[in-house]
Amino acid sequence: MTQSLDKELRENPIAASVDFQRDGVQHGHLKLPYSRDDSAWGAVMIPVCVVKNGDGPTALLTGGNHGDEYEGPVALSRLAQELRTEDVRGRVIIVPFMNTPAFHAGKRTSPIDAGNLNRSFPGRPDGTVTQKIADYFQRTLLPLADVVLDIHSGGRTLDFLPFAACHVLPDKAQQEASEALMRAFAAPYAMRMLELDAVGMYDSAAEEQGKLFVTTELGGGGTSSARTVAIARRGVRNLLVEAGILRGEIEPAKSLMLDMPDGDCFVASEHGGLLEMCRDLGERVERGEVLARVHDVLRTGAAPVEYRAKRSGILAARHFPGLVQSGDTLAVVAEVLD
Amino acid sequence: MTQSLDKELRENPIAASVDFQRDGVQHGHLKLPYSRDDSAWGAVMIPVCVVKNGDGPTALLTGGNHGDEYEGPVALSRLAQELRTEDVRGRVIIVPFMNTPAFHAGKRTSPIDAGNLNRSFPGRPDGTVTQKIADYFQRTLLPLADVVLDIHSGGRTLDFLPFAACHVLPDKAQQEASEALMRAFAAPYAMRMLELDAVGMYDSAAEEQGKLFVTTELGGGGTSSARTVAIARRGVRNLLVEAGILRGEIEPAKSLMLDMPDGDCFVASEHGGLLEMCRDLGERVERGEVLARVHDVLRTGAAPVEYRAKRSGILAARHFPGLVQSGDTLAVVAEVLD
Amino acid sequence: MTQSLDKELRENPIAASVDFQRDGVQHGHLKLPYSRDDSAWGAVMIPVCVVKNGDGPTALLTGGNHGDEYEGPVALSRLAQELRTEDVRGRVIIVPFMNTPAFHAGKRTSPIDAGNLNRSFPGRPDGTVTQKIADYFQRTLLPLADVVLDIHSGGRTLDFLPFAACHVLPDKAQQEASEALMRAFAAPYAMRMLELDAVGMYDSAAEEQGKLFVTTELGGGGTSSARTVAIARRGVRNLLVEAGILRGEIEPAKSLMLDMPDGDCFVASEHGGLLEMCRDLGERVERGEVLARVHDVLRTGAAPVEYRAKRSGILAARHFPGLVQSGDTLAVVAEVLD
Amino acid sequence: MTQSLDKELRENPIAASVDFQRDGVQHGHLKLPYSRDDSAWGAVMIPVCVVKNGDGPTALLTGGNHGDEYEGPVALSRLAQELRTEDVRGRVIIVPFMNTPAFHAGKRTSPIDAGNLNRSFPGRPDGTVTQKIADYFQRTLLPLADVVLDIHSGGRTLDFLPFAACHVLPDKAQQEASEALMRAFAAPYAMRMLELDAVGMYDSAAEEQGKLFVTTELGGGGTSSARTVAIARRGVRNLLVEAGILRGEIEPAKSLMLDMPDGDCFVASEHGGLLEMCRDLGERVERGEVLARVHDVLRTGAAPVEYRAKRSGILAARHFPGLVQSGDTLAVVAEVLD
Amino acid sequence: MTQSLDKELRENPIAASVDFQRDGVQHGHLKLPYSRDDSAWGAVMIPVCVVKNGDGPTALLTGGNHGDEYEGPVALSRLAQELRTEDVRGRVIIVPFMNTPAFHAGKRTSPIDAGNLNRSFPGRPDGTVTQKIADYFQRTLLPLADVVLDIHSGGRTLDFLPFAACHVLPDKAQQEASEALMRAFAAPYAMRMLELDAVGMYDSAAEEQGKLFVTTELGGGGTSSARTVAIARRGVRNLLVEAGILRGEIEPAKSLMLDMPDGDCFVASEHGGLLEMCRDLGERVERGEVLARVHDVLRTGAAPVEYRAKRSGILAARHFPGLVQSGDTLAVVAEVLD
Amino acid sequence: MTQSLDKELRENPIAASVDFQRDGVQHGHLKLPYSRDDSAWGAVMIPVCVVKNGDGPTALLTGGNHGDEYEGPVALSRLAQELRTEDVRGRVIIVPFMNTPAFHAGKRTSPIDAGNLNRSFPGRPDGTVTQKIADYFQRTLLPLADVVLDIHSGGRTLDFLPFAACHVLPDKAQQEASEALMRAFAAPYAMRMLELDAVGMYDSAAEEQGKLFVTTELGGGGTSSARTVAIARRGVRNLLVEAGILRGEIEPAKSLMLDMPDGDCFVASEHGGLLEMCRDLGERVERGEVLARVHDVLRTGAAPVEYRAKRSGILAARHFPGLVQSGDTLAVVAEVLD
Repeated sequence: MTQSLDKELRENPIAASVDFQRDGVQHGHLKLPYSRDDSAWGAVMIPVCVVKNGDGPTALLTGGNHGDEYEGPVALSRLAQELRTEDVRGRVIIVPFMNTPAFHAGKRTSPIDAGNLNRSFPGRPDGTVTQKIADYFQRTLLPLADVVLDIHSGGRTLDFLPFAACHVLPDKAQQEASEALMRAFAAPYAMRMLELDAVGMYDSAAEEQGKLFVTTELGGGGTSSARTVAIARRGVRNLLVEAGILRGEIEPAKSLMLDMPDGDCFVASEHGGLLEMCRDLGERVERGEVLARVHDVLRTGAAPVEYRAKRSGILAARHFPGLVQSGDTLAVVAEVLD
Repeated sequence: MTQSLDKELRENPIAASVDFQRDGVQHGHLKLPYSRDDSAWGAVMIPVCVVKNGDGPTALLTGGNHGDEYEGPVALSRLAQELRTEDVRGRVIIVPFMNTPAFHAGKRTSPIDAGNLNRSFPGRPDGTVTQKIADYFQRTLLPLADVVLDIHSGGRTLDFLPFAACHVLPDKAQQEASEALMRAFAAPYAMRMLELDAVGMYDSAAEEQGKLFVTTELGGGGTSSARTVAIARRGVRNLLVEAGILRGEIEPAKSLMLDMPDGDCFVASEHGGLLEMCRDLGERVERGEVLARVHDVLRTGAAPVEYRAKRSGILAARHFPGLVQSGDTLAVVAEVLD
Repeated sequence: MTQSLDKELRENPIAASVDFQRDGVQHGHLKLPYSRDDSAWGAVMIPVCVVKNGDGPTALLTGGNHGDEYEGPVALSRLAQELRTEDVRGRVIIVPFMNTPAFHAGKRTSPIDAGNLNRSFPGRPDGTVTQKIADYFQRTLLPLADVVLDIHSGGRTLDFLPFAACHVLPDKAQQEASEALMRAFAAPYAMRMLELDAVGMYDSAAEEQGKLFVTTELGGGGTSSARTVAIARRGVRNLLVEAGILRGEIEPAKSLMLDMPDGDCFVASEHGGLLEMCRDLGERVERGEVLARVHDVLRTGAAPVEYRAKRSGILAARHFPGLVQSGDTLAVVAEVLD
Repeated sequence: MTQSLDKELRENPIAASVDFQRDGVQHGHLKLPYSRDDSAWGAVMIPVCVVKNGDGPTALLTGGNHGDEYEGPVALSRLAQELRTEDVRGRVIIVPFMNTPAFHAGKRTSPIDAGNLNRSFPGRPDGTVTQKIADYFQRTLLPLADVVLDIHSGGRTLDFLPFAACHVLPDKAQQEASEALMRAFAAPYAMRMLELDAVGMYDSAAEEQGKLFVTTELGGGGTSSARTVAIARRGVRNLLVEAGILRGEIEPAKSLMLDMPDGDCFVASEHGGLLEMCRDLGERVERGEVLARVHDVLRTGAAPVEYRAKRSGILAARHFPGLVQSGDTLAVVAEVLD
Repeated sequence: MTQSLDKELRENPIAASVDFQRDGVQHGHLKLPYSRDDSAWGAVMIPVCVVKNGDGPTALLTGGNHGDEYEGPVALSRLAQELRTEDVRGRVIIVPFMNTPAFHAGKRTSPIDAGNLNRSFPGRPDGTVTQKIADYFQRTLLPLADVVLDIHSGGRTLDFLPFAACHVLPDKAQQEASEALMRAFAAPYAMRMLELDAVGMYDSAAEEQGKLFVTTELGGGGTSSARTVAIARRGVRNLLVEAGILRGEIEPAKSLMLDMPDGDCFVASEHGGLLEMCRDLGERVERGEVLARVHDVLRTGAAPVEYRAKRSGILAARHFPGLVQSGDTLAVVAEVLD
Repeated sequence: MTQSLDKELRENPIAASVDFQRDGVQHGHLKLPYSRDDSAWGAVMIPVCVVKNGDGPTALLTGGNHGDEYEGPVALSRLAQELRTEDVRGRVIIVPFMNTPAFHAGKRTSPIDAGNLNRSFPGRPDGTVTQKIADYFQRTLLPLADVVLDIHSGGRTLDFLPFAACHVLPDKAQQEASEALMRAFAAPYAMRMLELDAVGMYDSAAEEQGKLFVTTELGGGGTSSARTVAIARRGVRNLLVEAGILRGEIEPAKSLMLDMPDGDCFVASEHGGLLEMCRDLGERVERGEVLARVHDVLRTGAAPVEYRAKRSGILAARHFPGLVQSGDTLAVVAEVLD
């Protein structure tokens, strides 16, 4: 009778060409019909891999939630190529390019509807393409999972120290189990993240369904490197071993615990211009130091605007492009806990 | 009578608001009239700074030849803010955003005419906006200069080890004097560069006029960092000191000499897809090793295409974005000479 | 009090310049105010023609539901030019370019809001331009009608054997009366269509209001021909005669009955590339035969991907453009019933 | 529990950097987080100025509701530069560029979401950028205000005689108090406006909250002039004095009262082509006179289409661009009441 | 043998459907084949009207040289509709929309090739579409003419006092005869224009062929008004009478002579922002007065940049849009000669 | 010394990865360096296949000269997959996607520079991407060839009866030998073509180098069919057999000879609107008959514009899209010679 009920009853139009209940290795697509000017009877084809071996927990592994972040897509493409049925107990569902249209365009958001998938949950089965993808995860894939890992990086406009992260949760058992997985991931850094704008995140969607959820930021700039891909590959395998799904041993690595206790971690620009960062990622920063200058691009000789740290810590994230616009976050200073 | 003569006789439409013959510090613009849909009587305004103190050699310093390379714009903006008349003997001409329309757009080429300024020399006074800028450097600014420094980086789609570079020249005295300036620049690396497609370069325009010419590649990815800006700032000052224009001492630094002896240094992709780099910049590479993999973005489980090094050396440059297209240069392996 | 109630009470902003209750021939517009950057007080003007002669049933005839399908617009433009009051008993409402913005752009969907009108029902009076058009048909025009004919073709990206079609309906009397009109239309083929993605269709909107509804696919490719226009013109006249609205005789023609019993009728591509169709429309196809090949566009010599028929029948529809993307429907194989 | 309640409870994501409760002059921003392809952690920064001096009524002054209307932005920028705490009793909140993204683009609607802010009320805290701005005015700024002035002009596609305006309201005391402010504004003309398409207007949002509301049309064409800016500056000051907020005297000026009693005031085009206006703004018009001709742009020698006045009065508004499209309002003929 | 010779020998691809040697009134097209993505065998169709009556001088009348200037197109469309053979002695050639693609787009330059027709002379028969149009005027139409009138206005980004204009010419007889036509035109103002960037102008092309040439600026802003169209209509008729081509009397009107003696007439902006003009067209201006302010659009409270008159006179032209970019001409102050 | 000489001496930047002198089957690329915003060190990769077996004549076979014509690309992709060294005597060079950027975009012209390759000959080694491709054919590939076949179709905007064609040549032996190849091709029709706008064609470039040249038009609309691909495949094989390069027998087929003796064959539109073709391809047409109607798209009830045949014959080509613009060629009526 209510709109909410209607939504739950309407079927999501995505059809999977894999059978999530079948044992073995399957490669296929989540096929989302998409009628448009250049293909009246076309579809968005989201690659998916399922590896299942009998009973056991299910891990749902995703990359490409934002289309310009590459550690997840590379590490999960490699995993899908390598994983054999006998390596697994339970089930691994791999979606390496979650927002496939955004990923193919190399953009944070979908070129179809400008949808930011990580702000589109719980989605709608009768909404835009991005909302339909969100709804499929919300109502079809998340319910299948026990453990959820969503691999992010900074994308084209942010750069991060590589870290795995969890959120503070009301259910402390859920939070502790999630943190155990985060520690197993063993990225160089670990973080309890502060979300600036949390409405519609996949993270919350998973956590509200009671899943153990780990996310990451493993670099940025719209690229990946041998080093950051290695972090992602080790992290995924460690997390699956910790979850009891992958056979083998955890490969340990040193991880520094960070914290972003309040809004003073963030420094944002109120000017547009040419950005000069005065500290690099991982460097120590003291409160009141000049973190960045913004230079005038219309003339020489003008004094740049200086932006200073509002707290001490290490530089954990920065604006990546060489130009900056008013409103952009320039830098994040995190506190080192360990 | 000939076309060439005609071109030399026609005046370039750019007017400078600074007087290159006047002593002191001046900040102004190179004003290029540009009539267009959104401004019938508009202009492209290229910021310029001149610092002159009596007789002596002239250095012409440029950044933003490609609009998405930022070490030059930042270091030269800082220099223009700081340089005082009494610091100088002779003249310093600073154009920190050479292709200003491209720089404002954050793109390699001009949004006005898709012009790649570094492929547009000698330019034309009656050509496109980019060609007019080239012609102004060719016929007005280069003739004023003794020493020319053009600061490049990789831009949004390439990343480089930071190096200063010179070309092999027929006039050995000119080459040796240029290399002395390159060594004074003291970037972490130095290179004799092999140009893939040299037609229309600013480098050749300067060298053919007998100028001492140094170029650089100081990073890339469409960003700059505290570290690479520091390299650029030190290099510019050292070069000006070496040229006898700036008072002060050279700040020495270790510089490794590289060489790109032939086309086997370059590895290019014949496939489009998701790029996985297997080595990072500065790492040692052996001939025959897998340097990069290109993964299928339409499905999981397909074997990636592997690209291998054709020679041994260190990884000096790479494709930056996480996706790659057929024809893109993936990697450059340079030989270490020292 | 509820949202649904609110929507019914809010008036649609479209104003008709014709009086649907007046006898005679009227040509006018459905005027939809549309404030935008290039006209603050502008409007979308949808041409409409009404021919009324006393009491009797009403036929609502539409073309251009998708803006790149031309048999409907041509046949209905001709009809609106020719129809005289005395030819009619009851009323004929002709909207030859239903989604006028899409039609003017020559596109399936609206250039204003990317709206696919045939996926926008029941529409919203306070929604996008396309949703407002849908709402006007839903609440103003459909209630006036007894018989509804919506003339489709394949558009720029599909090509069809020419057929008229009806849907299976829960009300068997309604279905039989609709099928009688479909048979009167006398296209070369007739079809009970299987909809891939039926949410928001005009068809369902009409049928749910109890109207007799006939649709068509009369060709495609974003063109029309003398032959397909002749089919449309004869079909419209025959249908109006059968409905008792137009004076005159039905012009009979042979019509072959087709069926699309299940999803095996459809063959879709999982690859992008150059399409080679191995059968043409109307040709006999055997299960397992190669229907199409998709060739690599990045290199020569690679084996093409072959797509085979999943059932026997005749080729009833195909992807039209010479290139294909992953997810596109390549071909539809229909069963011949007669 | 209901959707409406949920919306009221969800916080608007905009954060103000000014404190609306603090005495003195403050310049700051309304910061709206906006994650997008070119800035993952970016924001829309809407400039705001607050001048407060103890208790007293609050005026909310806005320009740039449509981004191509300039009298409001100029007059309010000047006011924000000049207003001192001691000039004020109560509070003045100035938002000179209400739809900042549209204003920066010089367009009626937002380049981000094509949102027409003045058709987006009451807005949504979880909607598009334009809807979020509307919601912030609806639920945060309007409740702070007693008097609301929204300065409009015709924008790029309309031109108006300069007038201040009020609407007819069910609460006669509210209407009379609003009209007193309108008269104090003392534009050359005053108008009771007829809205063509009133859904979602800021005007209604303010009036429904019981605020005294005045709007204007002070010219148009996407420009402003010394004369129209002077009208706006005088009007704003007069209105603030009349409201008891600004110290000083009202500067009186002659104002002619106009009326638009019905739809016959409007003349719209049903043709596209080259527009020839036959009367200028402010000129007397007789019923039946040719107001405008639309000429064929594909050939010479064709007779133009003539559009005639449907009532007598003076020309109060016109289509501004030299070309016209079918559906555009060509002219508005108003009745002179005084 | 030389390139120039080759160019003269190659035929221009434009074909006229009118016969310039035939007596009577003809309406037709200059047809320029233009093969493109949306029409492989398409053409640009430039409307042309010829009225000829026996022997006598030829006038070539053009509007739409820039596509966003409307007094010429309206006045010449009207003239082409009205002119009868018997009104004429000699020949009148009317091309009301000279750069037809730009005119249809409502833009200064061509949407096909960004060509500014008035900077494209002498053109090329094998060049871009705009260059081909220029070449056709250069080598086909100008040689047919004795008297040439090209009607300009300010377009979307400039606004002018209405004036007719001539240039200073080396041939004093030619100059005097041209000025006689300019005086006959009898616009409210007359001007000896200073061209900022004269390369490629139609004016020079006509003058170098010895033609009597008059140009105008009759308003601007991308619109026209009843008043400015009346000026254009009277001017064209007067000029044709003065040239001995049109029967009838000259309608006299007062015309004020202006001069732009040097570059100090021009005031240009070195900042981008919100423009506040402090004087309106036709107003008296004293040297040193503030002519315009440019306000910051990123924040309130910042002091605007003030631009002052460099000479005394009257404001003859201004930047029209409400926003301004660095490099834009803000204002032109002309000297009153009479 | 002359520009022409300079051009011949400058090397084309394209490098072939195949060795045209080596026996056997090779698949590779013509690699054209292309530095751009999204790949600083990128390249256009044009697929090429060479099959060589000892001495003998060389055939150069091309498709995709226009990027939206598909019979050539499909037939030549198939040929490159199938041809074995032992099938050949001499050499076959296959470039199935000649203007690769246009072909990948599915457009007639290049998305890089809007270049129509078949209007770009002889090209320039330092020009645009399209001009560089033309220059490579002009100076590298054509000189290698004895026989040249360029397979065209109508593309997205034209549709043709399937024919092979030759031009009338001054060297009658060359013409006769070319016509023998055309007859061997055995398309359903053969034609001596009249070029509307012949400057810069590949055809002339080949013929002026004395090559035997055959072109085709094998359909159109931006698609291909099983039937037209079969015509292309048979034609290519027959031509190679006739030229003595491919072993095997000619497969004969009936071919009707057509002629386009003068400009009266062409019917062009002077109106924009909805196109109704009154004859289909291959149908008999009498002089004076209505070939097409153009209907008003802004209103119903207006009389359509009728276009009539200027000569008798059969309909050989037509405008394909359902909408038409002023200047478009509507139809071509050819004379049947046999």
